[in-house]
Amino acid sequence: MPAQAIIREVGLRDGLQSIAAVMPTAHKLEWLRQAHAAGQREIEVGSFVPARLLPQLADTAELVAYAKTLPGLVTSVLVPNLKGAERAIESGADLMLLPLSASHAHSLANLRKTPDEVVEEIGRIRAARDASGSRMVLEVGMSTAFGCTLQGRVEPAEVLRLLQAVLDAGADRVSLADTVGYADPAMVHSLFEAAFALVGDKLACGHFHDTRGMGMANVYAALQTGMTRFDACLAGIGGCPHAPGASGNVASEDLAYMFASMGIQTGIDFDKLMALRGQVAGWLEGESLHGSLWRAGLPKTMRPAAATA
Amino acid sequence: MPAQAIIREVGLRDGLQSIAAVMPTAHKLEWLRQAHAAGQREIEVGSFVPARLLPQLADTAELVAYAKTLPGLVTSVLVPNLKGAERAIESGADLMLLPLSASHAHSLANLRKTPDEVVEEIGRIRAARDASGSRMVLEVGMSTAFGCTLQGRVEPAEVLRLLQAVLDAGADRVSLADTVGYADPAMVHSLFEAAFALVGDKLACGHFHDTRGMGMANVYAALQTGMTRFDACLAGIGGCPHAPGASGNVASEDLAYMFASMGIQTGIDFDKLMALRGQVAGWLEGESLHGSLWRAGLPKTMRPAAATA
Repeated sequence: MPAQAIIREVGLRDGLQSIAAVMPTAHKLEWLRQAHAAGQREIEVGSFVPARLLPQLADTAELVAYAKTLPGLVTSVLVPNLKGAERAIESGADLMLLPLSASHAHSLANLRKTPDEVVEEIGRIRAARDASGSRMVLEVGMSTAFGCTLQGRVEPAEVLRLLQAVLDAGADRVSLADTVGYADPAMVHSLFEAAFALVGDKLACGHFHDTRGMGMANVYAALQTGMTRFDACLAGIGGCPHAPGASGNVASEDLAYMFASMGIQTGIDFDKLMALRGQVAGWLEGESLHGSLWRAGLPKTMRPAAATA
Repeated sequence: MPAQAIIREVGLRDGLQSIAAVMPTAHKLEWLRQAHAAGQREIEVGSFVPARLLPQLADTAELVAYAKTLPGLVTSVLVPNLKGAERAIESGADLMLLPLSASHAHSLANLRKTPDEVVEEIGRIRAARDASGSRMVLEVGMSTAFGCTLQGRVEPAEVLRLLQAVLDAGADRVSLADTVGYADPAMVHSLFEAAFALVGDKLACGHFHDTRGMGMANVYAALQTGMTRFDACLAGIGGCPHAPGASGNVASEDLAYMFASMGIQTGIDFDKLMALRGQVAGWLEGESLHGSLWRAGLPKTMRPAAATA
C-alpha cells in the first residue's frame, strides 16, 4: 500500500450536474472554502459547458476565481470541447479534464463525435493551450472504460489504443473512469495494470461509481496496481442517470476513512469533512445522498491522530 | 481469482436475529425453499439459543428438519454453548457454528466467559459430538477479529493464538468475522494471509459487514488470499446494534453479482435470487434493507449465461 493518496473532490461538478436543482453560488463558495479547510487540495469546481445545457454549473468561472485564492489548491474544471477549453484557459484553472468516451455509442450519443474525432479535438486543445502560453494541465478522462449502458461491452484493447492516441495527440495525462458502475475489482486490476504498463505515470487518476456496491473494492484494486489519485464526491452524489436511485460516485468521506484506516495519508481532517458533509446534506435536502460513514461513525480504533493523518 | 466460490446464506440467522419482528415459520420455510431453488447450497437456518433470548429463532429445529429434505443442502446452525450444541446434534444439521469473540470485553459482555473459557467449552462440545456418533462439522467463528466496539483494537496475534487454540481443542475448522464492521481490505489481507499460513485449509469462511462501506472490498481482499467461502445475508440485513441504521452483512445478491462479473462460479441463479429478495423485502416491510444490485439492476454486459454461471 502507498504511503499517501489523493482524493480529488468532484462533488461540485460530477455531483451537482446530476442534481436538477441549482445550488446557489454562495453555497458552492462555502463548500469550496470548507473543503479546503478540511485539507482537500484537488477540487473540480465545475464545467465550461453552455449554461443552457447545465445551468447547475453556470457559475464555474466565479468558482475558479475564488478557488485560486485558496493556498495550495489544484483547481480543475471539465471541458467538453475546444470552446470549453478556451474558457478554461481564460479562467486560470490549474487543470482541465476532457472526457473521451471509449464507447463509440456513448461518445456519439453524448458528444456527437466518435472517439477518434475527440482525439483530434484534443490536438486542437493542446495547440490552443500552448499558443496561449498557459501551463494548464490537460487530462483526458477515459469514460465508460469498463462498459457502457448503450453499447454494453467496451474492449480493453480499444481503451488502451485510445489512451495512447490521446497522449500522442498532446494530452499531458490520462485517467480511467467507470462512468456507469460496470467495473469489478478484477477488471480494474487488469485494466489499470495494462494501462500503467503502456503509459506509466501518465495514468493519473481512477474514477469509480458505487452503482452496484463495488466502488470501494474497485478503488482498492486500483490502489494495488499503483494508482494513488481517486475522484470522489462528498456524500456520494453523482448518480448514474441510467440507474435511478442507485448510488453515485464513491463517497469522499468513505474513501478518506478507508485510506486512513489502511494507514494511507490523505491530509484530510475527518471532523471538518464530516461537518461539511452535514452542511451540504442540508443544502441538498430531498436529494438522494449516499455513503456509509456518516451513519456508522468512525470506529473506536480510529483515534484522532490516525483520522487526521 | 478462484474458479468457484461459495456464498453461505446467513440471512435466516444473522439477519433475522437483528430484526425485532418474528418472521412466521411459513415464510422462513418458503425462503429456504426458494434459496435452494436459486442454487444456494449452504444455508445457516437458525440458532439453538433459548427462545426467551431470541424468539425470532425459536423455530430452528423445524427449519433444520425441512432443510434436510432439500437435496445437496449443507444446513448450518449457530450454537452458543454445549447445551445448544446438544440440541444441534439432535436436530441433525450438517454443521454447527460456535462463535468465539477474540475481544475479551466482547466475550465477557456477550457470553459471560473469557475467550479461553469458550475454548474449554469447545473441547466439551467436541467430546459430546464424538460421543453421540454425529458427523456434524464443528466450525468456530472468530468474531470481532478485526476490532470491537467495546474494547477497540483486537490484536491479530491474539486472534491467531485463539485460532490455534480452538483447533487444538477439537474444532474441525475456523472462520474469521468482522462482526462490527471495523475491517479494511489491508487488515483483511494481512490477517487472512497469516491465518492461512497458520491453519491452512482449516480456515473455511470470511464474514464481513458493510457497516462502513467496505464489505465488498474486504471480500475481494480475502479472495486474493485464497478464501472462497463467504457469509452473506439476502438484502444485506443483519445490522450492527452499535451503529443504528448502518448497513448489515454483505448482501448475498451483491456478492453473487461481483463473483459472476469476475467469472467466479457460485451456482446461483440471479433471477430466482432477485425474485426471492423481492419477496423477503415484502415480508420485512418497514425494516432497513441494504444492497445495491436490486436498485441498479444487472449491467448490460452480464448476459443470462454469465449471470447463472
